[in-house]
Amino acid sequence: MRELSLDDIEALAVGAWILGTGGGGSPYLGLLNMRRLYAEGHRVSLMQPDDLADDDWVAAVSNMGAPLVGQERLTDSRTIARAVSYMEEHRRIRFRAVMALEIGGGNAIQPLMAAAHLGIPVVDADMMGRAYPEAQMTSVAVGDLQPYPLTTVDCRGLESIVEKVPSWKWMERVSRKICVEYGSIASTCKAPRTGREVKDWGIHGTTTKSIAIGRAVQASQASHDDPIAAILSVEPGTVLFRGKVSDVERRTTEGFLRGEVRVSGLNDDRGAETRLAFQNEWIVAWRDGEPIAMSPDLICLLDSVSGEAIGTETIRYGQRVTIVALPPPPVFQTPKGLAHVGPRAFGYDIEYRPVLP
Amino acid sequence: MRELSLDDIEALAVGAWILGTGGGGSPYLGLLNMRRLYAEGHRVSLMQPDDLADDDWVAAVSNMGAPLVGQERLTDSRTIARAVSYMEEHRRIRFRAVMALEIGGGNAIQPLMAAAHLGIPVVDADMMGRAYPEAQMTSVAVGDLQPYPLTTVDCRGLESIVEKVPSWKWMERVSRKICVEYGSIASTCKAPRTGREVKDWGIHGTTTKSIAIGRAVQASQASHDDPIAAILSVEPGTVLFRGKVSDVERRTTEGFLRGEVRVSGLNDDRGAETRLAFQNEWIVAWRDGEPIAMSPDLICLLDSVSGEAIGTETIRYGQRVTIVALPPPPVFQTPKGLAHVGPRAFGYDIEYRPVLP
Repeated sequence: MRELSLDDIEALAVGAWILGTGGGGSPYLGLLNMRRLYAEGHRVSLMQPDDLADDDWVAAVSNMGAPLVGQERLTDSRTIARAVSYMEEHRRIRFRAVMALEIGGGNAIQPLMAAAHLGIPVVDADMMGRAYPEAQMTSVAVGDLQPYPLTTVDCRGLESIVEKVPSWKWMERVSRKICVEYGSIASTCKAPRTGREVKDWGIHGTTTKSIAIGRAVQASQASHDDPIAAILSVEPGTVLFRGKVSDVERRTTEGFLRGEVRVSGLNDDRGAETRLAFQNEWIVAWRDGEPIAMSPDLICLLDSVSGEAIGTETIRYGQRVTIVALPPPPVFQTPKGLAHVGPRAFGYDIEYRPVLP
Repeated sequence: MRELSLDDIEALAVGAWILGTGGGGSPYLGLLNMRRLYAEGHRVSLMQPDDLADDDWVAAVSNMGAPLVGQERLTDSRTIARAVSYMEEHRRIRFRAVMALEIGGGNAIQPLMAAAHLGIPVVDADMMGRAYPEAQMTSVAVGDLQPYPLTTVDCRGLESIVEKVPSWKWMERVSRKICVEYGSIASTCKAPRTGREVKDWGIHGTTTKSIAIGRAVQASQASHDDPIAAILSVEPGTVLFRGKVSDVERRTTEGFLRGEVRVSGLNDDRGAETRLAFQNEWIVAWRDGEPIAMSPDLICLLDSVSGEAIGTETIRYGQRVTIVALPPPPVFQTPKGLAHVGPRAFGYDIEYRPVLP
């Protein structure tokens, strides 16, 4: 267990946005909340999954919805804390710690905000190792752990529970409709997990990993070194494409942000074009019509100069971008994992080929 | 407190279908359930609201959704009982009795099914005195009682709670979306009511009233007397129109059954046409373009020969029908009541004029 410094959290925001693969929502508003909470004297500690007792309860939290809406309805740190305490009241349990559902984007910061209000630590783990749009796209769903209950809360005082469902996909269906009616954004506490389940099925060390990536980017910015090279010095991965955004087509629909982006090649990639399809997150990339990267691999679209991530809700015409692929958590590369998050799970009839062997 | 006989329940099914004003779902499947439960030895008692203690808890139940779907997904008596016991578990209370949210249609039978399984009585009251499509269209909403929580259950094992909402309309919005995702039908237990609230805001005696109407129709059928006259001998009301159904336009949308029906006049009404608009229930009737009856008055469309009600989901071309208007519970004729259920609440810019002075 160690106390996170505000510098750690600033780096976490940069790194998690990269691991968000376009989604998870911008971490910026969450970071502003954490600066305020730290200024008020709150502190958050990071604990390792192995330090959990098997029968500890852990709250997995996230903001659910369409990232674009998160730019308009500002994050209030009390809302995510309420989702957790509501679950405690409902299940009559006390949580030992909070963890991220997804380490990607603003959802890496959500557990810190809840933890600050509730006075409990954050576990250095998540259930995606990135961001994904749907409830069944997690390591715990691949592990067939219990999908329910789930609490949803919003800033107007709306509170609902999905108590029981026959499957993870039903959890996605019912909770998504609630989220859409709230205005396509809701703070959620997912099915409580035991310490044993987090140890067995959590994706470990992802908070630490995000901080390391963020620090590498920050250091390269300070020294005017190549930030992309800095990222690839701390994470295995490869550069897919460099270019300029030439087209963005985006719509908020059914509680998701969907669309396509086209990038025209620059430098070595001049004359070529890469097209990216997204559902909150970048799902598939095609170069001149041929798929070159796809979920579960992490497709990260980065500002070529700063190395910082660009989200599916903020990308716009003219941006100079570098597209990088990072390897996914192994749990998603198994046949069961691919059934949950492979290209066909998103409706693309493509065989998964990992970018890294 | 008196035990309901199976004859009472057979009459209740006929009378409640008339009070359903086209909605509340056909009582037939609920009646089949009650015949089976009575054959298995279950019995249900009817208690008067005044026999409740002020601090007793009462469960208000209904099937929520589009009546047409209720014709396809058959009623299972255990589902509505589960909605009640789920509320008991969630709120950690024991219910003294069950009551109908709406006495109209199949929703008059739902509390009997729950009561049979749970071994508690049914209160001789409801919150509409008829059927209405939306959550804020009740006496307790007009009375500004607390709208939450609400449990929803379906036959596949889906269970959700709307825990907190800022208004009755928000309860309608969120619970409706859950219901739609379940397949536009859900068994629900509404916000638990105290005995005091039922005494102050319940619409009393409506189970007894339904049984009396049903018995009058049954007696007229046995003696080959005019069933319409029989109904009007036990209830104040008036015949609006007699004719033949000439057109039905119907769609299941947003969790409701909506549409319009046209009736061509026969006998004294030959040459005239009456048009009825419905949202689950008959809302407004126009004769040759002029509004002649509207919510909150009860517009009852009856089979001219049998006197039995025809629902918005079962009406079809060629049926010989008599349209009758009955007076509404006084709570809906107040300015506050009309704001909840008057013609403008359904989008019709018409001033409410009662059929009976």
